[in-house]
Amino acid sequence: MASDHIVKSFDDELNQLENVIAEMGGLAELQLADAIDAIVKRDPDKAEKVIARDSRIDALERKVDQQAIRLLALRQPMAEDLRAVVTALKTASIIERIGDYAKNIAKRTVVLAKAPSTGSVKTIVRMGGLVQAMIKNVLDAYVERDIKKAEAVLKSDGDVDLLYTSLFRELLTYMMEDPRNITPSTHLLFVAKIIERIGDHATNVANNVCFMIRGTEAPDRPKGEGSIFFTDEELTPKQKETGA
Amino acid sequence: MASDHIVKSFDDELNQLENVIAEMGGLAELQLADAIDAIVKRDPDKAEKVIARDSRIDALERKVDQQAIRLLALRQPMAEDLRAVVTALKTASIIERIGDYAKNIAKRTVVLAKAPSTGSVKTIVRMGGLVQAMIKNVLDAYVERDIKKAEAVLKSDGDVDLLYTSLFRELLTYMMEDPRNITPSTHLLFVAKIIERIGDHATNVANNVCFMIRGTEAPDRPKGEGSIFFTDEELTPKQKETGA
Repeated sequence: MASDHIVKSFDDELNQLENVIAEMGGLAELQLADAIDAIVKRDPDKAEKVIARDSRIDALERKVDQQAIRLLALRQPMAEDLRAVVTALKTASIIERIGDYAKNIAKRTVVLAKAPSTGSVKTIVRMGGLVQAMIKNVLDAYVERDIKKAEAVLKSDGDVDLLYTSLFRELLTYMMEDPRNITPSTHLLFVAKIIERIGDHATNVANNVCFMIRGTEAPDRPKGEGSIFFTDEELTPKQKETGA
Repeated sequence: MASDHIVKSFDDELNQLENVIAEMGGLAELQLADAIDAIVKRDPDKAEKVIARDSRIDALERKVDQQAIRLLALRQPMAEDLRAVVTALKTASIIERIGDYAKNIAKRTVVLAKAPSTGSVKTIVRMGGLVQAMIKNVLDAYVERDIKKAEAVLKSDGDVDLLYTSLFRELLTYMMEDPRNITPSTHLLFVAKIIERIGDHATNVANNVCFMIRGTEAPDRPKGEGSIFFTDEELTPKQKETGA
């Protein structure tokens, strides 16, 4: 019975909390990889599995919320410890959202599998690979309290945005060439946009990690929303000119 | 000098925190209204003002974060009080995101003002009106601790989704009719999607309000992500059949 009375240290409990978040992050990374793979292989069964698995991430978020609230109530942490618990809450909520996005990509796969194939899928795969690496790296930065790794994630978001912008233009061209391309291209456009948004969310986690370590916001904090959806910059000069 | 030493009660400080959130919410509501109005009036100057004003919402979120962390550290609240502070943190982060979305609509307005007008703007205005009401009502529910109002917000999200789905189909038809419609229709599609997402975020706040009051998740918690982007259900039966 003695083991019942062993009181864990705050650090142990925080560690446990962060392990749940690492598990969530690993799962979100896998969900994104599988959702994109389902598009490439035109495999609706794989997509259905991604959709079904999302509830596991949701359950883990509730676990983080409960553990964090318990930690705040019982341990009443201060300063860096307090920031760590608040960061855990925020990070779990962002990863839950990444899971939702992966599920949404999977939902589109079910439709895309019926549509004619297009060449833009390769760019989707490249974007997906970059963003998966961002998720992995930001979780490493989080668990290892590594501010340099977090800052590297902030920088890598620009590559994703560039790929997105070029893919956006490509898809718009396909749509203009042949009306039959409109529906599948619109879906791919949204898939690309979702992947780009996941990258933004990874930068939000990176900002939270910087805040947790430093106790202040990054000085030139990229907000991770510069291109929530495509805007002026995404149009070719000709499109801008003609508005068409 | 005596006033320096007056110690405010926890309730006063929480109240102050919630006032900042109400201010953020009012501002986000205004930003959405102005962004949509800028589309209707094809007024890029108004859109630019929305873009510039977003930093005020960001600053208010940082204020909420600081005050909440201070409250947690100094007051060490328990049970319902603790849930209230955690809900404040989560709510501020959602409203900040709503502000980002409004800014993004405004960015699109700058492009749309140059494009030919289409009739779908009326539906955008209706969607915008519904979602503005959702933001207002969920903030009332939050400040008044009114679970019935929060639940009403959860229900009203369905109307927004219906409008979005019908608008989506309409825009796809325009795009297929004339390639010159593709660019402006794609922008309006994203604007509609953003408004629908803001509605989802309002339901997320409503869920948080239910959690704060009850201490448990809603039993059949709508996750507010059922249609992050359009999926199978958005296609007409014919589109589903032909994949085009």
